[in-house]
Amino acid sequence: MPRLSELSENERAEFRAEQERAYAALQQAGLKLDLTRGKPAATQLDLSNELLELPGGKGIADDGTDTRNYGGQLGLTELRAIFAELLGVELDQVIAQDNSSLSLMHDLIAYAMLHGIGGGQRWAEQKIKFICPVPGYDRHFGICQHLGIEMVPVELGPHGPDVEAVRELAADPAVKGIWVVPMYANPSGAIYDEQTTRALLAMPAADDFRIFWDNAYAFHHLTAEEYAPLDVLGMAAEAGNPDRVYQFASTSKITFAGGGVSFLASSKANLDEYVGHAKFRSIGPDKVNHLRHVRFFGDAEGVRRLMREHRDQLAPKFDLVGQVLTERLGPHGVGEWEAPDGGYFVNLAVPDGTATRVVELAKQAGIALTPAGAAYPHGNDPRDRHIRIAPTFPPLPELEQAINGLATCVLLAAAES
Amino acid sequence: MPRLSELSENERAEFRAEQERAYAALQQAGLKLDLTRGKPAATQLDLSNELLELPGGKGIADDGTDTRNYGGQLGLTELRAIFAELLGVELDQVIAQDNSSLSLMHDLIAYAMLHGIGGGQRWAEQKIKFICPVPGYDRHFGICQHLGIEMVPVELGPHGPDVEAVRELAADPAVKGIWVVPMYANPSGAIYDEQTTRALLAMPAADDFRIFWDNAYAFHHLTAEEYAPLDVLGMAAEAGNPDRVYQFASTSKITFAGGGVSFLASSKANLDEYVGHAKFRSIGPDKVNHLRHVRFFGDAEGVRRLMREHRDQLAPKFDLVGQVLTERLGPHGVGEWEAPDGGYFVNLAVPDGTATRVVELAKQAGIALTPAGAAYPHGNDPRDRHIRIAPTFPPLPELEQAINGLATCVLLAAAES
Repeated sequence: MPRLSELSENERAEFRAEQERAYAALQQAGLKLDLTRGKPAATQLDLSNELLELPGGKGIADDGTDTRNYGGQLGLTELRAIFAELLGVELDQVIAQDNSSLSLMHDLIAYAMLHGIGGGQRWAEQKIKFICPVPGYDRHFGICQHLGIEMVPVELGPHGPDVEAVRELAADPAVKGIWVVPMYANPSGAIYDEQTTRALLAMPAADDFRIFWDNAYAFHHLTAEEYAPLDVLGMAAEAGNPDRVYQFASTSKITFAGGGVSFLASSKANLDEYVGHAKFRSIGPDKVNHLRHVRFFGDAEGVRRLMREHRDQLAPKFDLVGQVLTERLGPHGVGEWEAPDGGYFVNLAVPDGTATRVVELAKQAGIALTPAGAAYPHGNDPRDRHIRIAPTFPPLPELEQAINGLATCVLLAAAES
Repeated sequence: MPRLSELSENERAEFRAEQERAYAALQQAGLKLDLTRGKPAATQLDLSNELLELPGGKGIADDGTDTRNYGGQLGLTELRAIFAELLGVELDQVIAQDNSSLSLMHDLIAYAMLHGIGGGQRWAEQKIKFICPVPGYDRHFGICQHLGIEMVPVELGPHGPDVEAVRELAADPAVKGIWVVPMYANPSGAIYDEQTTRALLAMPAADDFRIFWDNAYAFHHLTAEEYAPLDVLGMAAEAGNPDRVYQFASTSKITFAGGGVSFLASSKANLDEYVGHAKFRSIGPDKVNHLRHVRFFGDAEGVRRLMREHRDQLAPKFDLVGQVLTERLGPHGVGEWEAPDGGYFVNLAVPDGTATRVVELAKQAGIALTPAGAAYPHGNDPRDRHIRIAPTFPPLPELEQAINGLATCVLLAAAES
C-alpha cells in the first residue's frame, strides 16, 4: 500500500472520503472512552486490596512507634528502609510522607519561594526559570505556571535532553531547576542514561539550582528488564554538588493512587531544610498508612513482586496499542511512536499541525484524550503533533476500540491537512 | 492556713525550707513524666482501633467512587456530609482533606503569600500582621513566626478577646488575620460567645482579612453539656462578610492523631479559591482514609457517641488536676486556674515572674512541661506566669504524680520569689 505522502491527488481524495466514512461509522458507535490520564485500572488496584484491612492490631510498629499518635516527621523507619533499598540510597537519605509526591515537589518550590534555599534569596523576590524537557509531564508545568515560573523547553531525546542546551541555560543564575522523569519519562518513555545524568550533576549552575528528579516510574517496568535506578545522589556527591538533587517516588501507581505514600530522597542538608519548613505545616505524616504499607509489602522484594503483577496486566495493553497503531497507521506511513520499556504512556507523534484536530475529532466520537500540547509548557506544542496515550485504565476491549477510533481520527486529520 | 502572701518573714522562711525539702524528695523519686503536648492517651486511641481494619471490601464508596484511584479534590461526599451536620454547615460549605488541619491553615497562608486572596496583592509583597489572642496555640504562632508575619497579642477573656482592642487593630490594612480557637480555647478553655463572634464578623477590616476559626475541639466536651458549634458561616453572611471565615476541624483528637482527616468549612468563594491552588499540589486527598472514617463513624451520631467515650476517659483526668491543684495550691493562695468544659488543656497561672522557674524546677525533677511562654508569640509571656498543663496523655497514677510534683515546684518558686 502506498504511503499517504505518495498518493496522487485523486487517490488522496479517495483516501479522505474513505476516512470520512470510517469516522462517520465511529461517531455512530456512540463510544464513551477515556484515554486522558495515567490512572491504574481497577484490576490493578485490586492487587492491593489487602491494604483495605491493614495494618490491624493496635497500629504499633516494630520499633515500638504508636503510629496512631502524633509525631515522627521523617515517616516510619521501616517504610523508609524498604524504599531506601529500592532506590539504592541510605536510610538517612530518604523520608516518607503523605499521599502524592506531587505535593512534595509543590511544597519544595513553595518553600523556596517563601524562604529561599540554603540561605539564598527568596525565589518570590526574583524572576525564576525552570528548564522543561519536552514532551514532559503537564502537572510539573502546572506548578511552574501557577507560581509564575518561566518555563524554558528543551527537546527530550531517548536518553535525556540535549546536555549542551541545558548547560547553556543553567549558566543563567535565574535558572533554578529542571524537571526530570528519569525512568520511562512521561510521556515519551525516555530513560536518562548515566552520561546525561553526570553532565546535569556536574554542570555549573546557581547554588540553589535543583534537579527535580521525579522517579515516579522507577519500578514500573513493562519488560522483564528491570533497570535499577541510577545512583543519582551518589553521583551528585561525586560531582561535588551533593545538594543538587531532590528525588521523588511514591506508591501512587504501586498500591493506591488515592491513598498511597510518597518519598523524598536527597542529601541530609536538603532533608533537614525540608523538614525545617514542613514541621510548621504538620506534626507528622500519616504513619498509620506507612505501617499499612509496611505490613502489606513486607520488604523490598514484596514491592518488586507486586510490580511484576502490574506488569502482567499492563504489558498486554501496551502491546495492543502498538499493534493497532502499526496495523492502522503503519501502512499509510502516518504517525510515529515507540513502545516504551516502562511507565504509563505512549507518545504518538502525528503529522505536524494535526494533533489539535485529532483530539477534537476523537472528542466528537466519544473518545477523551489529553488536550493536544498538554505535554508542553502552557499547552503549546510548537509543531502541534504530540498526543499522549494513557492505555492503563480501560479494559482491553475498550482500549482496542479507543485506539482504533483514535487511528481513524489520525488518518482523517492527516487526509484533511 | 494563712495564704503565702500573708506570711511573716519567719513563716515565709520556714515555708520555703519546707518546699525545698519537698522538692528534694521529688527529685529523689526519679520521675520521668511528660505533660508537654495535647496528645491522646493510648486508651483513647484504642477506641478507634476498628479503623485499623477498615474500610474493607474493594474501597468503593456508596456513591460509586473508587476511593483507591485518583481524583476527588473536595474529599469523599459521605464524609463531608457527616461533618457538615456536626459543624452545622451546608454540604457545599465543607471539604475533607488529609491528616492535620494545621496543614490547611499553613497552606491557606502560604497561598495568600504567593497569590494573594480574592485578587488582592500577594502577602509576600507586604508587611503582614495577625491578631493573636493570648494565651493561645503555639503552632498557630509558629506558622506566623516562620513566615515573617508580625503577631499582635490581645488578652483573651473567658468569652473571647477584648473586642474593642481587636476592632482598633483590624482597622490597620496590614492586619490580615486573627487566630481563634472558639470552643475550649487552647490553653485557657475560653468559649467564644455569639456577641463577640458577631463583633469580629462585622467589624471593618481589609477585604483579605480572614478569621482563622480553628474549631479543633468543637466536639471535645468534658461535661454533659454538649455545646453546639456557633453558626459562624451563617453569621458572617448576615454581617455582610461571607468570605471572612476559614473554619477548621479534624479528627486528630477524635480518631487517630497520626492518621486522621481534616476539614475546611468556608464560603463557596473561599473553597473555590483554596481548591484552585490545592489542585496544583495534589490530585486529591486520601479518599481511602475518608471512606475508612465513614465506615467507622456511620453517621454524625457515631462521632458524638465516640466523643462521649473520650469524655469518660478524660473527665477524671481533668478532675484530678483540679483536685490536686486545689489541695496543694489552694490553701496557700498560690496560682489560678479554671476547670475547662472541654478541650485538652488546663491553663495554670502562677505568681508573676515564676513560670520559667517552675518549668526549670520541674524539668530537673523529671517532669517535662511546655516551655513557659509557649502560649505567647515568640514565647514571650510578658508577666512570665502561664503554664500549659496537658493532662490527657499520661495514665491517672502518673498524672497524679506529675501534678503533685508540679505543685511542689510552683510552691517552691513562689517561696523563692
